[in-house]
Amino acid sequence: MPEAYVKVTLKKSILDPQGSAVEKALRQMGHPVEAVRVGKYMEITLSEGLDRAAGEAALEEICRKVLSNPVIEEYAFSLEDRP
Amino acid sequence: MPEAYVKVTLKKSILDPQGSAVEKALRQMGHPVEAVRVGKYMEITLSEGLDRAAGEAALEEICRKVLSNPVIEEYAFSLEDRP
Repeated sequence: MPEAYVKVTLKKSILDPQGSAVEKALRQMGHPVEAVRVGKYMEITLSEGLDRAAGEAALEEICRKVLSNPVIEEYAFSLEDRP
Repeated sequence: MPEAYVKVTLKKSILDPQGSAVEKALRQMGHPVEAVRVGKYMEITLSEGLDRAAGEAALEEICRKVLSNPVIEEYAFSLEDRP
């Protein structure tokens, strides 16, 4: 079954207040942290029988149109065949 | 500068209503999707000068105590040296 691992992150140029909050909290607790950026992670099981090209095309469309906001976010995915 | 990539996901045995909602939405739009699980993703820049062992120990503690709820979530991280 094709399994996709998707990461959606804010573009580098976009402020990440959630990440800043995590960073401050970690630093106040004494952890050796310089910066934190927070994103989303999704594991997507695609339908059985899709070939690799079709799977990648479907994922590209899902990421662009549904899972990310291309104005402020970027995405990356990897696709694996899991038995 | 040591850079860590952290994934936090719900344990397999825990229901993921957010993932189910995304899955239903994608299917209604006609995408070839079987299952979706949603998690968190974080990029953490550690302080300069930490060696690998110290970085891993710090990350392990950060993940266990702050970024995840070990009752229902599991985490994985990878650590890289970025110039």
